[in-house]
Amino acid sequence: MSSPATSDMKEKITCNGFQAAGIEAGIKKNDRKDLGLICAEKPAVVAGVFTANRVQAAPVLLDKQRITSKRCQAIVVNSGNANCCTGAQGLEDAAAMADSVADALGIAPELVMVASTGVIGEPLPVGKIQTAAPQLVHALRPDGFSDLAEAIMTTDTVPKLLSTDGQVDGRPYTITAVAKGAGMIRPDMATMLGFVCSDIDISADMLQRVLRSAAANSFNRITIDGDTSTNDTVLLMASGLSGAQVRTEAHYDSFRQTLEDLFIRLARMIVKDGEGVTKLVDIVVKGARNNEDARRIADTVSHSNLVKTAFYGEDANWGRIIAAAGRAGVALDPDTIDIFFNDVQMVKNGIGCGKKIEAKATAVLQKSEFTVTVDLHQGPGRAAVITCDFSIDYVKINADYRT
Amino acid sequence: MSSPATSDMKEKITCNGFQAAGIEAGIKKNDRKDLGLICAEKPAVVAGVFTANRVQAAPVLLDKQRITSKRCQAIVVNSGNANCCTGAQGLEDAAAMADSVADALGIAPELVMVASTGVIGEPLPVGKIQTAAPQLVHALRPDGFSDLAEAIMTTDTVPKLLSTDGQVDGRPYTITAVAKGAGMIRPDMATMLGFVCSDIDISADMLQRVLRSAAANSFNRITIDGDTSTNDTVLLMASGLSGAQVRTEAHYDSFRQTLEDLFIRLARMIVKDGEGVTKLVDIVVKGARNNEDARRIADTVSHSNLVKTAFYGEDANWGRIIAAAGRAGVALDPDTIDIFFNDVQMVKNGIGCGKKIEAKATAVLQKSEFTVTVDLHQGPGRAAVITCDFSIDYVKINADYRT
Repeated sequence: MSSPATSDMKEKITCNGFQAAGIEAGIKKNDRKDLGLICAEKPAVVAGVFTANRVQAAPVLLDKQRITSKRCQAIVVNSGNANCCTGAQGLEDAAAMADSVADALGIAPELVMVASTGVIGEPLPVGKIQTAAPQLVHALRPDGFSDLAEAIMTTDTVPKLLSTDGQVDGRPYTITAVAKGAGMIRPDMATMLGFVCSDIDISADMLQRVLRSAAANSFNRITIDGDTSTNDTVLLMASGLSGAQVRTEAHYDSFRQTLEDLFIRLARMIVKDGEGVTKLVDIVVKGARNNEDARRIADTVSHSNLVKTAFYGEDANWGRIIAAAGRAGVALDPDTIDIFFNDVQMVKNGIGCGKKIEAKATAVLQKSEFTVTVDLHQGPGRAAVITCDFSIDYVKINADYRT
Repeated sequence: MSSPATSDMKEKITCNGFQAAGIEAGIKKNDRKDLGLICAEKPAVVAGVFTANRVQAAPVLLDKQRITSKRCQAIVVNSGNANCCTGAQGLEDAAAMADSVADALGIAPELVMVASTGVIGEPLPVGKIQTAAPQLVHALRPDGFSDLAEAIMTTDTVPKLLSTDGQVDGRPYTITAVAKGAGMIRPDMATMLGFVCSDIDISADMLQRVLRSAAANSFNRITIDGDTSTNDTVLLMASGLSGAQVRTEAHYDSFRQTLEDLFIRLARMIVKDGEGVTKLVDIVVKGARNNEDARRIADTVSHSNLVKTAFYGEDANWGRIIAAAGRAGVALDPDTIDIFFNDVQMVKNGIGCGKKIEAKATAVLQKSEFTVTVDLHQGPGRAAVITCDFSIDYVKINADYRT
């Protein structure tokens, strides 16, 4: 029921009933856009997923309160400062940030949600945001999502913006999403900022369920550096303006699949634009005793610095993959393990397939995207994680992040 | 009761009743020593600890069988090849490696233990070892430990060799140890190769207990890159020749402390010489609800790539430390967390102490060794891990390891 039609061209990206904006407010150095806004014509139903980190930034704490109303009309987000570890002042600043936008829009403050991304532990320059709020609201445009996507970037090198269409009982709807990623990316809800609008007509409870499910199969399956951010937030607003109504489980499944497909594309964009990333690698573990075992192995392999530096070096060093599998805390029989790089078998029954296939394996590793499959031959368990290589540039970027 | 007297000068390092050797057998490229041997005058009691990785190399599997006899007279070790993921042939090769040395020494093969380190998944060139065995035995010398320490190096840049003296009831004894580390180092038994000789007189059961305890507080507290090797092995032989007899718990405690002190020094040498390491950092977590919580937080902080790249960049980015603590899977209250770099307090009650102390903090980070203390103020739990920074050279070394 979902349509495969998509549009990545930024001039076309809109979503019925929503406007967006992104401007320079002087929070970041270097005159880059750093303040963004999404605004719905009327209060929309909203769903959210937030970081699993025990240390949570002020905007996350505020949103978790406000989302209990299941209604939201605007989201204001800044980059350049995470407003995290900022104590009571940080909470006041997050509320003041929402207030200033609510004032400029002429709506109730409780309908405004907030997000921040950037350096942890520095006071939010809330005065700059308050000063810029009227200009931000003035900049709202139906096709302002590309400016918003720019305004939420930190070490991202490209804005991440996608839109897709679907149908419910023949009535079309649109989903439009922006996201930022780059660092502190690990599969542990939600690993990034993402703001998603749709004109679909859906209940708040179904919206929360569909968001959680689609995020679990997309954003929670990616890793760049294994660190979970304090600010991770994905918010999904639905205006209902399309008239495409989600009422049945079949409608729900169709919408979930469309949303998940969009999220997976966005998740892959995040990994490809990860800090210093030169290769996107799908790690697939199958034949585990159960899915949880498979997930632990996929997680350990996809976070191993030795595996990731070998990817960077285009070195078919499968010994590091099998060693990482072995330390995943899962009972396994090394003598039944097969490993493939795309369709090139490197390991059969725990033993290397010899020097002859090295050239073929290296050809796979020289690609910018490839799949590593680990087959344990012990059961039906399966898991997949999207990871990346670990490059010299990752170290350079992160050694100098604050300077 | 233990004496603080130690000697690091290689010409002096011996151990009563033991000889050692290290030669070039052509296993490594570049004409470097790659085959080593320790030999006791008579069969010694032996204790061992081995990798927790589920994928274990052939020499580990062989040693775990042979150590059940609690007796050992010789240990032969090669670098340049891990003899791991080599199947039934690998087990045969490990036994053949022991046999060739047993033949040359004229002792029973069961008294010979083996270890290997290097690339995983390539067949052991056992013929080279068999050919070199007579020469290796011929090279045995009481002061051959420095050659042995060289022969077990892989990406290590310096040989690691220490000796210390202790006393039991006024009778002196010596402990002499060699180790290699550099990569695939994580606190999960035993994270390295280590071979330790002593002329102390002790039962095999006490020897195993003392080794396990001392290793838990030293080698199991270090991390370089979070990957656990398939070949980790520490073997401890005791000849009894000193006449210093460990009979009581007080004797045991004294010997344990002396051994642990030596292991901690060796563990710090391993981290300092870790791949690409420029800084050694002690991570101390205190005030946790219990020791296990403290250990999980220390472990997560010490493995965070974002924390480690900030150390490399000499950037006092404590936000990454608190974010790593928050994702350790431990219940904690961010509002009671204090963080110190040496004695410079960066965070009080979860909030940064401001820009004024940045210069002092940076001065700490510019040192080659410093301590990061995270105090949760929630209970008596405490843990410490020794970690290091994460540098551009780590990536360079590991992108090109096999080439």
